[in-house]
Amino acid sequence: CRPTRAEAEVRSWKKEVKKETKLGMAYKKDDNFGEWYSEVVVNSEMIEYYDISGCYILRPWAMEIWELLKEFFDAEIKKLKLKPYYFPLFVTENVLQKEKDHIEGFAPEVAWVTKSGKSDLEAPIAIRPTSETVMYPYFSKWIRSHRDLPLKCNQWCNVVRWEFSNPTPFIRSREFLWQEGHTVFATKEEADEEVLQILELYRRIYEEFLAVPVSKGRKSEMEKFAGGLYTTSVEAFIPNTGRGIQGATSHCLGQNFAKMFDITFENEKGERSMVWQNSWAYTTRSIGVMVMTHGDDKGLVLPPKVAPIQVIVIPVPFKDADTTGIKGACESAVYTLNQAGIRADLDARENYSPGWKYSQWEMKGVPLRIEIGPKDLANKQVRIVRRDNGTKVDIPSTDLVEQVRVLLDGFQANLLETAKAKRDACIVIISTWDEFIAALNDKKLILAPWCDEEEVEKDVKARTKGELGAAKTLCTPFDQPDLPSGTVCFASGKPAQKWSFWGRSY
Amino acid sequence: CRPTRAEAEVRSWKKEVKKETKLGMAYKKDDNFGEWYSEVVVNSEMIEYYDISGCYILRPWAMEIWELLKEFFDAEIKKLKLKPYYFPLFVTENVLQKEKDHIEGFAPEVAWVTKSGKSDLEAPIAIRPTSETVMYPYFSKWIRSHRDLPLKCNQWCNVVRWEFSNPTPFIRSREFLWQEGHTVFATKEEADEEVLQILELYRRIYEEFLAVPVSKGRKSEMEKFAGGLYTTSVEAFIPNTGRGIQGATSHCLGQNFAKMFDITFENEKGERSMVWQNSWAYTTRSIGVMVMTHGDDKGLVLPPKVAPIQVIVIPVPFKDADTTGIKGACESAVYTLNQAGIRADLDARENYSPGWKYSQWEMKGVPLRIEIGPKDLANKQVRIVRRDNGTKVDIPSTDLVEQVRVLLDGFQANLLETAKAKRDACIVIISTWDEFIAALNDKKLILAPWCDEEEVEKDVKARTKGELGAAKTLCTPFDQPDLPSGTVCFASGKPAQKWSFWGRSY
Repeated sequence: CRPTRAEAEVRSWKKEVKKETKLGMAYKKDDNFGEWYSEVVVNSEMIEYYDISGCYILRPWAMEIWELLKEFFDAEIKKLKLKPYYFPLFVTENVLQKEKDHIEGFAPEVAWVTKSGKSDLEAPIAIRPTSETVMYPYFSKWIRSHRDLPLKCNQWCNVVRWEFSNPTPFIRSREFLWQEGHTVFATKEEADEEVLQILELYRRIYEEFLAVPVSKGRKSEMEKFAGGLYTTSVEAFIPNTGRGIQGATSHCLGQNFAKMFDITFENEKGERSMVWQNSWAYTTRSIGVMVMTHGDDKGLVLPPKVAPIQVIVIPVPFKDADTTGIKGACESAVYTLNQAGIRADLDARENYSPGWKYSQWEMKGVPLRIEIGPKDLANKQVRIVRRDNGTKVDIPSTDLVEQVRVLLDGFQANLLETAKAKRDACIVIISTWDEFIAALNDKKLILAPWCDEEEVEKDVKARTKGELGAAKTLCTPFDQPDLPSGTVCFASGKPAQKWSFWGRSY
Repeated sequence: CRPTRAEAEVRSWKKEVKKETKLGMAYKKDDNFGEWYSEVVVNSEMIEYYDISGCYILRPWAMEIWELLKEFFDAEIKKLKLKPYYFPLFVTENVLQKEKDHIEGFAPEVAWVTKSGKSDLEAPIAIRPTSETVMYPYFSKWIRSHRDLPLKCNQWCNVVRWEFSNPTPFIRSREFLWQEGHTVFATKEEADEEVLQILELYRRIYEEFLAVPVSKGRKSEMEKFAGGLYTTSVEAFIPNTGRGIQGATSHCLGQNFAKMFDITFENEKGERSMVWQNSWAYTTRSIGVMVMTHGDDKGLVLPPKVAPIQVIVIPVPFKDADTTGIKGACESAVYTLNQAGIRADLDARENYSPGWKYSQWEMKGVPLRIEIGPKDLANKQVRIVRRDNGTKVDIPSTDLVEQVRVLLDGFQANLLETAKAKRDACIVIISTWDEFIAALNDKKLILAPWCDEEEVEKDVKARTKGELGAAKTLCTPFDQPDLPSGTVCFASGKPAQKWSFWGRSY
């Protein structure tokens, strides 16, 4: 308790400011999640809506997060000997259609270029929805011998999927940014191993960086990648909407594409063999999942590891105070933190009140705010306020770096724990159809014993169709509870093969 | 001179290898430059031709260079407070056509999306050929007050220009990668200053990194950016074809776009003012200019600063030699160099002879080759061979890092000096039309006194039309020779205003 700080004054500033500048949020996360989300991504200056539906402008507050994630992931895959490539944006109709299941999966969403200038093209050209068909004819050309394997390609690029349902910034957009890895091996064992190595990196992006808890698991036959052998994924869950959301996917393509594109090699015995392939990707969607998970009624909440600014320093110059001294102390704090590798910045704008600044940086989700006023200056201390729980501490300036480090680490850990507790509270284990429907209506993340038959999943989809969308499998988690013998499928009554997560999804 | 090395043996290996594996070049740079260039970019594994004309696959040997350039440039512009953005790939017809001169410049090359899946879009949507019209409607929205300025945006992305003339890898492709910077200022002075700051960074990319000499200068009214106020550029020259090539451009857009897109701000006096804008870009073309400048009849020659591998270490195990000892010495050399921050790699492949490896790494342009054979092992030395001039030195293993550093620095400097000498030898100063035509036929880079009138440039274009393309201004170099009063324009006979570079161009 610090009686000298004019808390009341700051509060009244804030109220004024919200009225005048619309900095405050009009929607609450629990009342109207959809509008709340749109408001957060726009007001925090991550997103600007664009005049083509389903396309969004990514502003620095989003792109700097994307760059931080990219820096981590790109360094990790380079350790795994992935090489950078750039394949064209365009693919001919003929090649795109080579793998039948694959094109069936993507055809309705493909954007076609048919004209250049005022002339019609000879044949329409597709914009890549993903690059399997763009790349694999060349893999066939490059791979001759077992010595050319493994081949490991990655590209960072944009892809286009012209979807019509519910465009949502980050989550479902017609153009998005991603990395796509495409690898080729001599044996299934190597491919299987890499699928999991990459999936672990995706888990780390979500849990270590974005502080979003995810489940690793395998997709059902219905939900796997079109044309692949099997798909693994990390799955997140949004408690407010009761929907699962696919975080990233790591596919083993098996030999399906190798057959269609004739990708073979001479093995060490001099025989012709067919390769094994993987493809895997994560996208800017990951940023949206993070916003949905941590944001609150004041705006964004950013995990320190991905926050473009981890600490915002704000001078609080009361009347007759030593303004120069305060500004100097603020500059010194920023300098000290920057030198220690902490992303700190100073908000020295003179046309905004401290209260307005507090609101703005809360909206933008900066983890820690440092306030320095006359008393702080006199006592050689700073006040630190946490964005996640609003707690305040005064610390001596001499301990600045050490204390900020501790607070940032705690903040990061706390976000993940809190999110995990909320997610776990939504998990319901069910065993009957009635329990399933009740849990679905209750927006739960449903763990159910399942016979693992495609027809049964289709049937569940059909029986749960409705305004909110049908239920489907999210994944079969690698972390399986006991399945006592005699357990039956909740939907078919047949013997259960596994526990799977079910629910509605994005 | 080292009598112990089996030079002859290596030479005979090489001959064999070239026949068997086609590692050697079929074309010579001076005999058939076009075919030579295609062969170099393909055989060095920078480029794979794609089945859509004018689109190319960038392989790791090109992408790693692009990443090194990007790392430098991105860090430099972040010092200038540029922020990362990502704007959509698509733009509506309506917005694209807002700035009349601009769209006239780009319209014939715009690719149009008209369908998604099997449905026609309501209206065709353009793929960005550049992003002025994509971005500026939002600049208008974001900028209200002088406090919102300067606004500094940069994005790394792909753009599409559906050109029909002479597609050439890197140099002229229908899709290419670039960065595009778009900045907004309150005053013309600030805009003018930034134009030159960025141009200097472009000069550094070419001269310091790619070792390609360029001239800084200003484009003529005919050649400036469509819709802009003035364009500056760095211009390179390819002696073999006698063509100038625009290396990168930094445009001052003036207030033309601000007018069309209504980008205004309230200045400090409370009055409404119109902003000043710049845009600037460099592209993957820069890699092609480097290949053309330094490559030779053995393949690529890479400047050390951008070489993905700066030093390739090759064991040379003669019969009965201590193979294990040689391999160990090679691994140790690579380790030592890597620890010192030098990009070194070991070619330990056992199915290729040393001679074959020499040829392959020469083809790929690696600056230094280290050979370690039995004698080197015995003498605790390594042999280093330079890619640019083939000189060989034996150095004690203890001096490895120091000597390699000296050699790499010398290599980098030598490439630029050599290229500069070749370029300078092509510059011809002329004063009459007859001299101009003679120099043009002689594939020179022509510096001519000019009246700076658009009609005269049009006239020169018309009079020089032909199979090889017309002559035009390349730039008016900032570095101007004396222009004695009374000097007349080589083409019009009117008083000359300046010296300008003329020639054919890419």
